[in-house]
Amino acid sequence: MENQSYEVKMNGSGIHEKNALIGVNGKGLNGNGNHHKAVKSIVCLAKQKSCRQRWNIRPSEMSINTLNPIRAIVDGMKLTPNPEKPMIALSIGDPTVFGNLPTDDKVLQAMKDAIDSHKYNGYAPSVGYQKSREVVANFYSCPEAPLEAEDVLLTSGCSQAIDLAITVLCNPGDNILVPCPGFSLYKTLAVSLGIQVKLYNLLPEKSWEIDLQHMESLIDDRTTCLIVNNPSNPCGSVYSKEHLQNILSVASKHCVPILADEIYGDMVFPGCTYQSTASLSSDVPILACGGLAKRWLVPGWRLGWILIHDKNQIFGKEIRQGLVKLSQRILGACTIVQGAIESILNDTPQEFYHRTIRFLESNSEICFSELSTVPGLTPVMPSGAMYLMVGIEMEHFPEFQNDVQFTERLVTEQSVFCLPATAFEYPNYFRIVVTVPEEMMVEACTRIREFCQCHYRTCSRDSNELDQ
Amino acid sequence: MENQSYEVKMNGSGIHEKNALIGVNGKGLNGNGNHHKAVKSIVCLAKQKSCRQRWNIRPSEMSINTLNPIRAIVDGMKLTPNPEKPMIALSIGDPTVFGNLPTDDKVLQAMKDAIDSHKYNGYAPSVGYQKSREVVANFYSCPEAPLEAEDVLLTSGCSQAIDLAITVLCNPGDNILVPCPGFSLYKTLAVSLGIQVKLYNLLPEKSWEIDLQHMESLIDDRTTCLIVNNPSNPCGSVYSKEHLQNILSVASKHCVPILADEIYGDMVFPGCTYQSTASLSSDVPILACGGLAKRWLVPGWRLGWILIHDKNQIFGKEIRQGLVKLSQRILGACTIVQGAIESILNDTPQEFYHRTIRFLESNSEICFSELSTVPGLTPVMPSGAMYLMVGIEMEHFPEFQNDVQFTERLVTEQSVFCLPATAFEYPNYFRIVVTVPEEMMVEACTRIREFCQCHYRTCSRDSNELDQ
Repeated sequence: MENQSYEVKMNGSGIHEKNALIGVNGKGLNGNGNHHKAVKSIVCLAKQKSCRQRWNIRPSEMSINTLNPIRAIVDGMKLTPNPEKPMIALSIGDPTVFGNLPTDDKVLQAMKDAIDSHKYNGYAPSVGYQKSREVVANFYSCPEAPLEAEDVLLTSGCSQAIDLAITVLCNPGDNILVPCPGFSLYKTLAVSLGIQVKLYNLLPEKSWEIDLQHMESLIDDRTTCLIVNNPSNPCGSVYSKEHLQNILSVASKHCVPILADEIYGDMVFPGCTYQSTASLSSDVPILACGGLAKRWLVPGWRLGWILIHDKNQIFGKEIRQGLVKLSQRILGACTIVQGAIESILNDTPQEFYHRTIRFLESNSEICFSELSTVPGLTPVMPSGAMYLMVGIEMEHFPEFQNDVQFTERLVTEQSVFCLPATAFEYPNYFRIVVTVPEEMMVEACTRIREFCQCHYRTCSRDSNELDQ
Repeated sequence: MENQSYEVKMNGSGIHEKNALIGVNGKGLNGNGNHHKAVKSIVCLAKQKSCRQRWNIRPSEMSINTLNPIRAIVDGMKLTPNPEKPMIALSIGDPTVFGNLPTDDKVLQAMKDAIDSHKYNGYAPSVGYQKSREVVANFYSCPEAPLEAEDVLLTSGCSQAIDLAITVLCNPGDNILVPCPGFSLYKTLAVSLGIQVKLYNLLPEKSWEIDLQHMESLIDDRTTCLIVNNPSNPCGSVYSKEHLQNILSVASKHCVPILADEIYGDMVFPGCTYQSTASLSSDVPILACGGLAKRWLVPGWRLGWILIHDKNQIFGKEIRQGLVKLSQRILGACTIVQGAIESILNDTPQEFYHRTIRFLESNSEICFSELSTVPGLTPVMPSGAMYLMVGIEMEHFPEFQNDVQFTERLVTEQSVFCLPATAFEYPNYFRIVVTVPEEMMVEACTRIREFCQCHYRTCSRDSNELDQ
């Protein structure tokens, strides 16, 4: 390290001059006639202090390593819609965009009441108001996984909940297990912190259940967190009790704690039952992350939470204290939303939740049944959340190298934008958001069909097989 | 690294067994009779896979290193008020606590209008709505330091603004220059990221101006950020134009960018002028951090911002992109507050700001003039913000070893709590928050006087001098 202080930065081009002293005897450095500056640098060296002679500000490694694959892919696409067809975006995981899924009036009234009370303008504790934590604890507590206020941290959206959970459990060099396909934020956060990401496979043919053997094979001594996203973005899958128990068995066997991303919790279609991972765990400690964003249809409000499930005191005081300390970095959620949470959770009518679910199921069925009959596409029917994944039989679309090219051209020709699943590390699929108005969903499916009919080719391998 | 896979974790006490294989031939490890487990571990080693046999979850280094000195000091104090006197807390930097400084009705109405519009429930861009950024840019733009929407990032409170600014400018091993006394968050954030903190002295005898020589002497090749907090917490000082120019000269000479924490910007007493650091900078690039918290008296709402001042393109695109990328980790401020910001900034009556300032000045004057005549105390009159620092002539209070003991006993005897300035790395001072109701301020000063009179001792050194 000491030697590095002799590395003098001198020319304006950003190039380091390793042996700056040599230059002093010449007419200057790099022909810039920088003799004067060179002398100044020597004086500076003698003082062993700052040798900053010019501006050279670089973004930190952490900011460079904060990578958003969705942005990277979408920004790299040429998205020029067909001017003759109005654009239909099936790409945005925001249920509020089209105005057809408003939040409930009770939710809005709760906010206005919180404002009028004048009680929620000051700082809350960094983990949230005690009363608000209690309300969330009561809402999610069940006999199998009881919760008290102390088990709840309120955060600035579910994103911060996930950030805190990963940050408290993992050091640089550790690794976490992440679903593939899966929500890209896990990787974005982990990689920027120097944490390795290992992708475990989901099985489309098994309604996106986890390939447990594959997942288990990835666990090693530095595996400090298993992320389970149920219901799933981008798959819309909901795990059965048995499957969750099998996941828990693997976690228990290898003593790996679970980060359960349950932001779509309870958003499941009739006939299907959602169970929280924690309600089935006998020993595995769980940080369950959730928030108001999806179920209450207000993602911009940024109220999330971590529920700490730790029956056997395996996290113990230390993980709890670690979370509290991390929460003090930027404090948590807006106090007005915190003040409104009691009424939001307790007074929102059941019919509001049911209506949302009915709509999502209906749109999913429309989309699934439409695309099921399109040659070359293999949609997977979801059981919850707001998404539907569609496989592209690429061998039937030889014009396109991959899902990115496929979805790009779908915009150019049909003005329909679906997110290529490469954004979820899962090529040759695309994701459809089913929150758009029904007529838009129908129209989009018609256009996707037209697009596929236009580009579908009988597979050459198939015809070869027929020939033989 | 490969060798480390042979470091087997085996006993229940959390101790690593470096040479686990040796133990296998014996009766067990550490007398626990763990023969069976040891054999299992060897099998496990052979597979080069997970050897996790037991739960051992530790909080990350980062969470351990996220230290909050205020909490550490206050939690370590024995704060038992005198039961005969009601408690007066002059310790909390939250102007809303006592209800005497409500925000303006226009501010509350702006929030309700944002809710009623139904326009601000979805996701905003991670850097904030374009319109909201534009409004903040217009509010703070001046001919000397013009701002456009692209120069503004909205954040979850000023804390996140400071977090993003430090995180984008510094790598682990770099160092930042931080005022002493100063707001503890700078150090909390930096240390947790592996960034070294160098404290530069403020001079109480010069109204807390920066000791520029000392500050300059701290700059070295790894200094990547100079934090200037003006107006200051905990000092209440406001820098003159000349002093800011001198600070900028040092930054310019050594090519160090400035993080200007201006959360108390414009909160200065009549007769004193506040100038933003950026308005005086000809070349030094500046990230100015601010927010709604203090001037609009709503710290819980968590709306902050970074203003990027970069006349000469020294930050350039890369720092801007770095900030955008970091903002995508958890997204930013609550959308309702973002939706309300236009009306909050443009419609809040001037009289609201003036009333707040008048109150703060009046309370400061009461506090200063009262404590100026208390033997053993040396208050420093502030020019802005919400704080007043009081020096303790410790030699006159031989019962107490330091400011922590002094303020602790002040609670025990007089039920008045002031934050010991050790929390700001500045021993033998304490900080008074001047936002409390006037009668409380008067009563607190009376009690502080009584306390000091009770414990003041003529200094033995003074009397020696008199003897000679």
